[in-house]
Amino acid sequence: MDLTRREFGRLAGAAALAGMLPKTQAEGHSIGWCIVGLGRISMGHFMPGIKEGNTGRIVALVSGHRPKAQQQAAMYGVSDNAIYSYEDYDRIADNKEIDAVYIALPNGMHAEYTIRAAKAGKNVLCEKPMATSVADSQAMIDACRTAGKKLMIAYRCQYSPIQLKAIQMIRSGQLGSVQAIESSFGFNIRAGEWRLNRKLSGGGPLMDVGIYSLNACRYLTGEEPEDIHANSSVIDHDGRFTEVEENVGWTMKFPSGIVASCNTTYGGSMNGFYRVHGSKGMIEMAPAFSYEGNHLHADLNGGQQVDMPETEHDPDQFKTEADYFADCIWNNKEPKSDGEEGLRDMKYMSQIYQAAGLPSL
Amino acid sequence: MDLTRREFGRLAGAAALAGMLPKTQAEGHSIGWCIVGLGRISMGHFMPGIKEGNTGRIVALVSGHRPKAQQQAAMYGVSDNAIYSYEDYDRIADNKEIDAVYIALPNGMHAEYTIRAAKAGKNVLCEKPMATSVADSQAMIDACRTAGKKLMIAYRCQYSPIQLKAIQMIRSGQLGSVQAIESSFGFNIRAGEWRLNRKLSGGGPLMDVGIYSLNACRYLTGEEPEDIHANSSVIDHDGRFTEVEENVGWTMKFPSGIVASCNTTYGGSMNGFYRVHGSKGMIEMAPAFSYEGNHLHADLNGGQQVDMPETEHDPDQFKTEADYFADCIWNNKEPKSDGEEGLRDMKYMSQIYQAAGLPSL
Repeated sequence: MDLTRREFGRLAGAAALAGMLPKTQAEGHSIGWCIVGLGRISMGHFMPGIKEGNTGRIVALVSGHRPKAQQQAAMYGVSDNAIYSYEDYDRIADNKEIDAVYIALPNGMHAEYTIRAAKAGKNVLCEKPMATSVADSQAMIDACRTAGKKLMIAYRCQYSPIQLKAIQMIRSGQLGSVQAIESSFGFNIRAGEWRLNRKLSGGGPLMDVGIYSLNACRYLTGEEPEDIHANSSVIDHDGRFTEVEENVGWTMKFPSGIVASCNTTYGGSMNGFYRVHGSKGMIEMAPAFSYEGNHLHADLNGGQQVDMPETEHDPDQFKTEADYFADCIWNNKEPKSDGEEGLRDMKYMSQIYQAAGLPSL
Repeated sequence: MDLTRREFGRLAGAAALAGMLPKTQAEGHSIGWCIVGLGRISMGHFMPGIKEGNTGRIVALVSGHRPKAQQQAAMYGVSDNAIYSYEDYDRIADNKEIDAVYIALPNGMHAEYTIRAAKAGKNVLCEKPMATSVADSQAMIDACRTAGKKLMIAYRCQYSPIQLKAIQMIRSGQLGSVQAIESSFGFNIRAGEWRLNRKLSGGGPLMDVGIYSLNACRYLTGEEPEDIHANSSVIDHDGRFTEVEENVGWTMKFPSGIVASCNTTYGGSMNGFYRVHGSKGMIEMAPAFSYEGNHLHADLNGGQQVDMPETEHDPDQFKTEADYFADCIWNNKEPKSDGEEGLRDMKYMSQIYQAAGLPSL
């Protein structure tokens, strides 16, 4: 491959942006992934992301539905004896092909399947929220630490170039002193979803999608919230919200004084969104948290505008996330969104629930 | 004037929308306005609005700068002996041409000049926020009531067709059950503005522009907030914020369960904005609170979209406001945004400040 100096510089910059070292990738080592839970996010996003990249391959599946697993196994070249049920999940310990598991189960199962994976000697990439309680989250961290294995929480936004661009604009001072952030994310949930079952979900929209706003406020500011105040409600008494909340609104203050106000709902369409206001300009990301098609817009003092839509040329967010975790495993690096990072959000969500008069996590 | 039936219907509809009865207007009675305070909003917006309409005329001016007043008097055909200083303001009682005063002074002067106007037997249209304390607000209401004169607070948004369209979409059920609102409004203030002087302003961005978000949440929902929580901060220690706050973020819960999260700032650009999320769709107004060029967009379930920008064909918001007050005077109607309405916002702002650990109003 012939590269001009300029092209090489751009590629090296992109690799550095994603926190990647090309070294071990060039050596041909590929991460063997075991996919735990075959739902929409696994089959529709994460597994295609792995296939698109060249840092990993799918070598095992865990599912309660063997026919579905067999169909997926055929698509990804997974051998029949690498399809596990939840009962014989611990047998993954014997499968040396498996370097890492990707856990995409209902939240209430994250802790158990992370801890069992750690005990089986596997690295873990676990979907957010990391668990349904602070105690379970700590237990996951402890189990992975004891096993000497990596634990990463799948905060894909923290690795996507468009979010990194927003962060970089803020850190570089282009926005001046940041004053305030608004963010919201929600949707109108269908009856019958596991997300409405507290044992499986741990909570309502805050745990599921509000966490995007919470995490964004943290990665955008680079600070941890101090003062958290919140309201919560159930408006639609149609049987959906007997176990979890329908709406949460909250405000947080950060040590520098930045104030954030956020909303989340399971009762109506609420496209993921944030605005960051600084003394020298503002950033709007709308949509902000989609799997693709996010759009960054900035108005800077002096009339300078930035318009940066995600396009089909941008890397798949799940590929980027998997590539990053591969790099952490290869180079023994602690993931940026490790268990401690997931635990911080769990503690803040617990504080938000408490502030709204709901049980803590 | 020849009108087709269709044109007449449209005009009648517009008049009804603004709460106007054409009766007395046709009789040729015109409201004589006394403008108190010749600043940007008077000279740039309200006075041109009066001139554009046909319900009133400017008959008197009150200013501390006689040359400026004389210049404006020449533009509007105000006689020299109808130019008053603040000292001889009470002499407006003797000017039978004056039906109403428009008070566009720093907030801290609203109460005194409203009460003196009422004692002089004049109706009062007073800019928002109505005062700098709850007690002063009540005194203004009492003075106007005792004098048997109207008191209206200049919440122009409550009368503009684009806001009425948003309200109507919500009330008609097009959005289904409303769950959540986000709103924000702010700007980067220059040092030296009277708005930074607590005696003149009563507070920072919350009193000045945050009040738009607060009031919008109330007119959009048609409800009064119950649970108010807030954060406030000063980030820029550059001498501007020694008396008033720089940032406020707050969340409110309404009796139906609707949750609103709002931000305001004096530290950065924050275009006025709101989003309303319901079970059947969402409304975005961006910009939301500008003198012109506001833009309503709605996404309704089933893919229906509403896109309604304010254009040069829309009535001037200040004209609409003045026309409405003329109608209230002619037909002895209590203004929708009367003193009690202004007082409600004062009480809620006081609660927001208290919730943020700041002194109440």
